Amino acid sequence: MNRDRNRQWRLARRPEGFAKPTDFEWVESAIPRPGPNHALVQTRLLSLDPTNRSWMSERATYMPPLPLGDVMRGLGVGMVVESNIPTLATGTPVYGSFGWQDFAVVGSQDLIVPLPDDPAIPLTMHLGLFGHIGMTAYFGVIDVAKPRQGETFVVSAAAGAVGSLAGQIAKILGCRVLGITGTADKARWLVDELGFDAAVNYREESSLVDALERHCPNGIDMYFDNVGGTTLEAVLHLIKLRARLALCGMISTYNEAVAPGPRNLFEVIIKRARIEGFLVLDYWSRAAEAIEALARWHQEGRLKYRVHVIDGLEHAPAALNMLFEGTNQGKLIVRLS
Amino acid sequence: MNRDRNRQWRLARRPEGFAKPTDFEWVESAIPRPGPNHALVQTRLLSLDPTNRSWMSERATYMPPLPLGDVMRGLGVGMVVESNIPTLATGTPVYGSFGWQDFAVVGSQDLIVPLPDDPAIPLTMHLGLFGHIGMTAYFGVIDVAKPRQGETFVVSAAAGAVGSLAGQIAKILGCRVLGITGTADKARWLVDELGFDAAVNYREESSLVDALERHCPNGIDMYFDNVGGTTLEAVLHLIKLRARLALCGMISTYNEAVAPGPRNLFEVIIKRARIEGFLVLDYWSRAAEAIEALARWHQEGRLKYRVHVIDGLEHAPAALNMLFEGTNQGKLIVRLS
Repeated sequence: MNRDRNRQWRLARRPEGFAKPTDFEWVESAIPRPGPNHALVQTRLLSLDPTNRSWMSERATYMPPLPLGDVMRGLGVGMVVESNIPTLATGTPVYGSFGWQDFAVVGSQDLIVPLPDDPAIPLTMHLGLFGHIGMTAYFGVIDVAKPRQGETFVVSAAAGAVGSLAGQIAKILGCRVLGITGTADKARWLVDELGFDAAVNYREESSLVDALERHCPNGIDMYFDNVGGTTLEAVLHLIKLRARLALCGMISTYNEAVAPGPRNLFEVIIKRARIEGFLVLDYWSRAAEAIEALARWHQEGRLKYRVHVIDGLEHAPAALNMLFEGTNQGKLIVRLS
Repeated sequence: MNRDRNRQWRLARRPEGFAKPTDFEWVESAIPRPGPNHALVQTRLLSLDPTNRSWMSERATYMPPLPLGDVMRGLGVGMVVESNIPTLATGTPVYGSFGWQDFAVVGSQDLIVPLPDDPAIPLTMHLGLFGHIGMTAYFGVIDVAKPRQGETFVVSAAAGAVGSLAGQIAKILGCRVLGITGTADKARWLVDELGFDAAVNYREESSLVDALERHCPNGIDMYFDNVGGTTLEAVLHLIKLRARLALCGMISTYNEAVAPGPRNLFEVIIKRARIEGFLVLDYWSRAAEAIEALARWHQEGRLKYRVHVIDGLEHAPAALNMLFEGTNQGKLIVRLS
């Protein structure tokens, strides 16, 4: 754990399609020192999220594109190893945007959230259930989809970190929940382990619309969308009156320069539906509300959550693609040695 | 005005692309007689609306597709000429769905709204400002787009019946209003006569995105969409944080079997935007609120409104296409001889 060098992955070029290891550059340099009102954080865990890929493209998203040559952007959990911030003691575990590197210098104005030093809560939880993942699922369901007892809730990338929580939360709130996923194993996991009412493996279906209709004969009230594209189009065919579609992510499009849009938005008029985009970063001020509910449900055994840990910063570029290939099993995290 | 035969346009076949006169069949028959709890209405004015075209296709919309062989569906204004409905006197002017025919038998359960017999209000007003057109514009702006003082409001098909009212209402509510239209004449009319802040003639622009950006350098807060398709995509490029998009119609798609969808719905996530479809038929119960406001603004000279009257039921099929070619100048109405 004690290092004398800082290892970094920097963005070397804008990827075309899937990010390749050669789109990154491995740089080793001296460990930086924090200036006034700054602290040095040693990263322990790095969160890999589909949105990472979107930051690598030239187009701005909800953040400016990552400049070429910069350390790859990423959320993580680390330990304060040196601090010139009066309110932040050395040794404090913290959550923030530390990037793909061993050591980050962060300022008091940056996102840096001290974490409870509770041995009962593994650090990985802060990148999952109690971090941006849990909050994304919680607020997307509660605030955007607004479920009512007995309604039908569909979620895509359902076995993913956010999707699996979103579906379980909708289930806790009394909905019928259908997950869309990409392997038979994941479909079984959703139904047998997480208690989803049904799951569709889209790779096995010649028509996703038909598959959805089989499981939702009365239509779809809510859709928690993580993938966009043709999946969104299929769902739109089946939405009910006053359906709510919470747009959380569009992983089917992040590796494409231009991806086709849904050709049936007229359904939104016919059904007086609402499509709404949201970002977890608007909800930091309500974190306590989400964490309280998520912790309670987790403790009651009603909210299951798994992590997929990859050991070694050197594997981060290759691991990122697992999110788009669907080969990760739970929240994807890189553990720095 | 006194006829001894009933003339009808019936749907003969499902149109491909624009509706052709040969997609309709002209039928003359005896004037029907109303049964118990029914009334006979003689149609005076027929409203031609883009949505008429959508009813002719095989796919269901917010209404079932019109069966082949049925009288073409359409809203109109007429006079009760014989009544077996105790609450409806002969001689009452009425608004309802009377179809493309001289005489309609309507039941007490059908949409049949008695109109004030006020010589100061021309009958055409009830198909425009005080009918479904005015209400569509009013509730789409007030209830769906929800304007705030100083925001930027964009409307497509801006010189159309609904669009021209929607833009003026947003202007009355203190917005900056930009209209998208298809001729230089209409663009001038919007700015010079209706007081829009700007108008873009999309046919003259090599890039609609660039044209919109020129007029909305700070982005778009609200979009009242009547056309869908590539116009919606162009607007999405420029939406601001928490933009509201009120989907009212999609005239660019009604004559197509399948039309491409917007390829940049990711903007809805980035900007935490809301896209919402609405239909005026959900708002009949609040008609009085809309008519009160519309009448007041009209009387104050702040809400202008024009009608384009075509004489003769025989011209209805050809006239319908004017809505898609953009050759009508104001609310399109067929006057029955």
